Amino acid sequence: MCLGDDPTCAAFAEHRMRYRRDMEPERRAFLKSSFVATGGAAALAAGGLSLVTPALAQASRAKSVERCRHYHLPATAETVHWGYFSRSLKPQVEIESGDFVTIETLTHHANDDAERMVAGDPGAESVFLWTKGTKGVARRGAGPEDAKLGPGGGLGVHICTGPVAIRGAEPGDVLEVRILDVAPRPSANPKFKGSTFGSNAAAWWGYHYKDLLTGDKPREVITIYEVDASGGRDWAKAVYSFRWPGVTDPDGVLHPTIDYPGIPVDHTKTTRTYDVLKGIRVPIRPHFGVMGVAPAEAEMVNSIPPSYTGGNIDNWRIGKGATLYYPVAVAGALFSAGDPHASQGDSELCGTAIECSLTGTFQFVLHKKADLAGTALESLDFPMIETREDWVLSGFSYPNYLKDLGPDAQSAIFAKSSLDLAMQDAFRKMRQFLMHAKGLTEDEAISLMSVAVDFGVTQVVDGNWGVHAIVKKAIFAERTA
Amino acid sequence: MCLGDDPTCAAFAEHRMRYRRDMEPERRAFLKSSFVATGGAAALAAGGLSLVTPALAQASRAKSVERCRHYHLPATAETVHWGYFSRSLKPQVEIESGDFVTIETLTHHANDDAERMVAGDPGAESVFLWTKGTKGVARRGAGPEDAKLGPGGGLGVHICTGPVAIRGAEPGDVLEVRILDVAPRPSANPKFKGSTFGSNAAAWWGYHYKDLLTGDKPREVITIYEVDASGGRDWAKAVYSFRWPGVTDPDGVLHPTIDYPGIPVDHTKTTRTYDVLKGIRVPIRPHFGVMGVAPAEAEMVNSIPPSYTGGNIDNWRIGKGATLYYPVAVAGALFSAGDPHASQGDSELCGTAIECSLTGTFQFVLHKKADLAGTALESLDFPMIETREDWVLSGFSYPNYLKDLGPDAQSAIFAKSSLDLAMQDAFRKMRQFLMHAKGLTEDEAISLMSVAVDFGVTQVVDGNWGVHAIVKKAIFAERTA
Repeated sequence: MCLGDDPTCAAFAEHRMRYRRDMEPERRAFLKSSFVATGGAAALAAGGLSLVTPALAQASRAKSVERCRHYHLPATAETVHWGYFSRSLKPQVEIESGDFVTIETLTHHANDDAERMVAGDPGAESVFLWTKGTKGVARRGAGPEDAKLGPGGGLGVHICTGPVAIRGAEPGDVLEVRILDVAPRPSANPKFKGSTFGSNAAAWWGYHYKDLLTGDKPREVITIYEVDASGGRDWAKAVYSFRWPGVTDPDGVLHPTIDYPGIPVDHTKTTRTYDVLKGIRVPIRPHFGVMGVAPAEAEMVNSIPPSYTGGNIDNWRIGKGATLYYPVAVAGALFSAGDPHASQGDSELCGTAIECSLTGTFQFVLHKKADLAGTALESLDFPMIETREDWVLSGFSYPNYLKDLGPDAQSAIFAKSSLDLAMQDAFRKMRQFLMHAKGLTEDEAISLMSVAVDFGVTQVVDGNWGVHAIVKKAIFAERTA
Repeated sequence: MCLGDDPTCAAFAEHRMRYRRDMEPERRAFLKSSFVATGGAAALAAGGLSLVTPALAQASRAKSVERCRHYHLPATAETVHWGYFSRSLKPQVEIESGDFVTIETLTHHANDDAERMVAGDPGAESVFLWTKGTKGVARRGAGPEDAKLGPGGGLGVHICTGPVAIRGAEPGDVLEVRILDVAPRPSANPKFKGSTFGSNAAAWWGYHYKDLLTGDKPREVITIYEVDASGGRDWAKAVYSFRWPGVTDPDGVLHPTIDYPGIPVDHTKTTRTYDVLKGIRVPIRPHFGVMGVAPAEAEMVNSIPPSYTGGNIDNWRIGKGATLYYPVAVAGALFSAGDPHASQGDSELCGTAIECSLTGTFQFVLHKKADLAGTALESLDFPMIETREDWVLSGFSYPNYLKDLGPDAQSAIFAKSSLDLAMQDAFRKMRQFLMHAKGLTEDEAISLMSVAVDFGVTQVVDGNWGVHAIVKKAIFAERTA
C-alpha cells in the first residue's frame, strides 16, 4: 500500500497528506529515541571530545523548548530558492533550538534525465516545470532578472530548500546542525522502481576542461549513475553517458554549454553511450554539497563559492552522522540545504559529483553568543565540520570572499582562487583550532600539524577553492581540554 | 640472551656477527613463507588488481634466480650516502631480481638527541661521528666539497642507505619494490630500553616559518617523540621540546639555524620543555620518506626534492605492505632508502615528520622493458605507489624537475613550487593511469576522477611540492582490465 511515498499510486496526493499529518508525532518519537541512540545526548554532556562544553550544553538547552518538534520541509517550487543565498528570504519554517527538520533536497541536474529524476515526482516536477513563458522557479542564480540566459543568469546553480529560521538566532551566535539521517530520493517513475539516479556533468567549469587529451575539444559530457534506493548496495554504477548537445530551452534561448541550471535535455537530440565504466563500482558517500546559513554581506549571494557561512563546501564528509557549526550572520540564521550528492571524490575534479536528490533529517541547536565565552566555539568564524572520528576544518582561497574581495567579490572570486591560498587558510584555521579549542601553544600546534594532521583538496571547481585539514579526535583522548 | 640485537651486551659484536651469518638462510626461509602468506605470490599471479599481469609476472620471474637470496644492509659510515642520489655511487650490494634485502635506515635528525638516538648504537655512532677534523660521513649534500657550512653544503639532508644494484636493470625497465616489513630501531642506550625516539623539527624550511603568530619570530623548535619499540602501542607521545639554540659544530662553524644535517646539539645549551603535548597520542604510520632509484640527469642530485625516480616523496602510505614501481633511469637502478618516519601528516607542514630510525625488509622484482608492452607499467615515468587497498599516484610541481627546469634545476626548484602545479600533475597522471592501465576512455576517466578519486596534499616543504591522487582498487573489482 502507498504510504504517501509512492507517486505512482492513484491516491498518492491523499496518502501523502495523511502521511504528512501522521508523521510529525511519529517521526518525532523516532527521532527522539534515535537521537539518544546515536549519541546526541552524550555529545551534549561530554567535554573533551566535543566542542560543546557541559556548561554550554546546559545553557543552550535551557533556551530550547521543553519538547522538540519535528518538521518536514518538502522540496517544491514554493520551498526552494535556486542558485543563491539571501538574508532577505522569507523562512519556510521557523523553529526553536532543539527542533528537528526533515528537508528534501533536489539535485539541480535532475533535468539531465527527467525521465529518471523528475517524472512522476510532484515536488521535482513543480520545481523543474518549464514551458514557454512558465517556469516553476523562474529565478536561477543571483544575477539580474533580465539576464540573457534567464532570470538570475545562472550565477549560482544549486536548488536550496529553505530557509529554516531558528528563533532567537542573532549574529555572533553559533548554529549547530546535526545530520541525523540521509536517504536517497527514489525515482518516481515506475519503470525505475527501487532505484535512484544521479548525474555527473564534466562541465566547462571543471578542472579538466581546458586540458583534454583526446577527441573534440572542449566538450561537456554527462554520465548518469544509478544508486540503489533501498540502501542495500553501497556503490553506484554508471548507466550511460552523452555529450551535452547544445540545448534550446523552452523560452527559445540556446545553451551551447551548461550555462544555466535545470535546462531540460531533449534526449531525441543526444546520443547515449551505454558501454560506460563497465564493471566499475563507485563507493557511495551521500552528503550535501551545500549546507549553510545566509551571509550578511550582500543581498543576493551566488550559491557557488563557499564562504564563512558554509554553503557549497562540497566536502563528502558532510553526511549522516556529521555535525556542522556555523557562525550566525543574520537574524534567524536562515539555514538552507541543497546540492545533494551520492558520491564525490576530494577535488570534485570535473565540476560535479554524482548529483542525486537526497532527503536529510537535521537537528538544530542554537548556542548564544553570551554562552560561548571560553569555549571552543567562541569567535568561530568559519564552518566547522565534526564527523564521528574527526575534526575537519575548511580552508578557502578567501575565508570570507564577500568581505575580502570588495564590491566585485562575486565575480572576482572566480578569477582569484588557488590551492596555495586555500592551504594557507587551512593551516591558519587548524593552528587556531589547536591553540584555542585544544589549549596548545603555537609550537605544540605546529608540531602536531606536521605529524598528525592531514591536509586534502576539497574542491577545485567552486570559485573559492578549498583545502581541508583533518585531525582525529582520538588524538586528544587523554587530554582534558 | 643477546641475539646480536642488544648493543648493551658485552659480547654484542660477536653475537651480531653470528646473527648476521645465521640470518641469511633463516630469514630467507621466513621471508619465503611470509611472502606467500602476505599475498606476494597471489600478486604475481593476479590480473585485475595488480599492475603486473600474469604474463609479465612469468616473464619477470623467468629472469629471477631460481632461489632468492636475502641480504642485510646495515647503516654504517661505509654504507650510507648522505644528502644526495648519484648515478655514480658504488653499489653496497648487488642482487638478482627476486632477492630480499633488509635495509637499516637512520634518521638524519638523530643528533638532535644523541643520548637517545645515537649513543651505544655502533652503526649510528659511525655515521654521526664528528670531532674536530674527523667526520664519519664528511659529505652531506650535493653541494661543493668546500662549502662554507661543510662538505656538500647541506644541499640535501637525508641519510640514504645503499645503493642496492639490481643486476640487469637498464633504463626503461621498471623496478618493483615490495615493503615486506618495517620496524623501529630501538634506542641503544640502556637508559631507554624498549623505546625508540624520533625528532620533529619545526624548521626554517617549514610551511609555517614566516607565518608565526606568537613569541620570537622566526624560531626553530625541536620536539622529541617516543615510540614504543616493541610494537605494543600504536601511538607516539612527545617527550620534550627545545628551541634550536644556534650550534657551533666541532669544526667551529656556527649554525644559527638548522642549515646542515647531523649537527650535534649540545644540550647544556638548550632549555627543555617537558610539559609538551600532554595527553596527546599521535597515531604511528611508520614509513620511509625517501625511497628511490638514481636519476640519470645529473651526477649529484640533492636528496630533498622528489622526482620521477622517487626519492623524498614523503607520503606516509609508503610503509609496510606497500609496493613501489619505479622507472629505472640508470644501469643497475641503484635503489636507496632513508628519511625514516614514525609518523607524518599529509603536508609535513613544519618541515619534518617524527624522524625516527627504522629498518625495512624489501623484495625487488625487475620488470624488463621488453616485457612491459601492453601492460599498465609500459612507459611508466613516475613512482607509482600501491597499498593494500589503493593506487596512489604522486603529482609533483615539476614531474621531472631536473629536466623541466634546465641547468639550474637544483636551485630553481626551491623557488618555483606550488600546490596548483602539483594538482595539475596529479590530475594528468591519474587520467593517464585510468586510461592506460584500466582501459577507460578519457571521458570515463574524468567522470570517475570526480566521483571516486581523492586528491590530497602530500607535502609542502620539499622544494618540489606534492599532491597525490588515490583511487581504491575495489572500484575495479568486477573489471577485467
